[in-house]
Amino acid sequence: MTLIKLGGSVVTFKEKPLAANFEAINNILRALTHLKMPIIVVHGGGSFGHYWSVKYNMHTKPASYDLHGISVVHESMIALNQIIVNCMVKLGMNPYATMPSIFTLGHKPIAKKIKELQTIAESGLIPTTFGDVVHIENRKYSILSGDAIMSILAKVLRPSKVVFTFNVDGIYKDMKKGEIIKEVNNNNKKSLEFPKVVADVTGGMQRKVTEALKISGTGIDVLIISAITGSSFEGTIVKGRRNRQ
Amino acid sequence: MTLIKLGGSVVTFKEKPLAANFEAINNILRALTHLKMPIIVVHGGGSFGHYWSVKYNMHTKPASYDLHGISVVHESMIALNQIIVNCMVKLGMNPYATMPSIFTLGHKPIAKKIKELQTIAESGLIPTTFGDVVHIENRKYSILSGDAIMSILAKVLRPSKVVFTFNVDGIYKDMKKGEIIKEVNNNNKKSLEFPKVVADVTGGMQRKVTEALKISGTGIDVLIISAITGSSFEGTIVKGRRNRQ
Repeated sequence: MTLIKLGGSVVTFKEKPLAANFEAINNILRALTHLKMPIIVVHGGGSFGHYWSVKYNMHTKPASYDLHGISVVHESMIALNQIIVNCMVKLGMNPYATMPSIFTLGHKPIAKKIKELQTIAESGLIPTTFGDVVHIENRKYSILSGDAIMSILAKVLRPSKVVFTFNVDGIYKDMKKGEIIKEVNNNNKKSLEFPKVVADVTGGMQRKVTEALKISGTGIDVLIISAITGSSFEGTIVKGRRNRQ
Repeated sequence: MTLIKLGGSVVTFKEKPLAANFEAINNILRALTHLKMPIIVVHGGGSFGHYWSVKYNMHTKPASYDLHGISVVHESMIALNQIIVNCMVKLGMNPYATMPSIFTLGHKPIAKKIKELQTIAESGLIPTTFGDVVHIENRKYSILSGDAIMSILAKVLRPSKVVFTFNVDGIYKDMKKGEIIKEVNNNNKKSLEFPKVVADVTGGMQRKVTEALKISGTGIDVLIISAITGSSFEGTIVKGRRNRQ
């Protein structure tokens, strides 16, 4: 089982509202068709969900956000999901669009439903889910980011590999020199430099790397790669290790 | 709480593949804006989901259906849901698109998730769900019809009212005379005549009335009405009664 995150900054033009990057989407999807194992795809909001959640001042903190804003953010994420799913269908892949509320209650995992996603993936379909605005409790809502979903799924499914794709080439050892670090480990993780990306309600690159380190801390290898062109890519590996080792 | 079913034959042109009936959708939605209580909307597949499920020979019986067919049926239902949800957003309503797998496991209800839908509806959003192809177990899939979803939701939520909309005026006492029966009860239910509608994988009018009778058997009033024009409509009421009385 492999978990794949399609970054919002990869699948959309992040500075341009509601604009999908079809070329990048198709490049990544074509690479995925070569994988010969069950996969689950998670994508971010990019210029769809993020655009509206910034407009409606909506965050990961549970609160009574504007109801029309909740409608519009949720709708826009499904619209982006539909774009990606339709690209998959055209490439002959068998996606199964999946709202995160199917396998979460608030931000908590529903283990039985996550295991059902694995069965669905093993049956040959590709569950394709996304960051979303979800009900938490007592009529409060919150943004559940695609990266948080990656952690939730990885914790229950223990996939052999987790892949994050971004529109940067990886994590920099020295940004001025453009030097990409090939491997992150406990010794060098504090000296990393993060490329500045467009402001992002779910926390930008640093937050994403934190999620990646959290997943690698459970012993799973995490690959952080840039948008794939053809069959080659550059990136950083965060070697899986137990946190207590 | 009111449960509203938008028949696939109302929201689409059933003989024309993948064609939404925007006029009918907007007529019904405008009528719903006058309701001053929490509502949950369920819609059928019409010329979207039904069109593809007939093509891929997919039924309510759990089986290992064609995987690409599952992708396409599921995608088409989300596409129709997006059309309805976008109409709602344009009318200033606050829909919250909801896949049925959020509140079901196979065809069984998840009571906690159904009660969460009620909280969402009470918060002012309108959960808007639909008949869909869902995973059952052991890599088998099945069509969960919008009408079956109505029964599942009604059983847990015990709404004060359940409304079914069709593109016929109600249930006929005598079809030749065009005589519509105003009320169905245990005495006359065996002599009803059902208008012939386009073949339908989830069972047509007779099946829908069976679901309505099942719901009314738990004591809830069921209204069966034709597509609403303005504020007037014609239809049939199935008075709620306990089955054992």
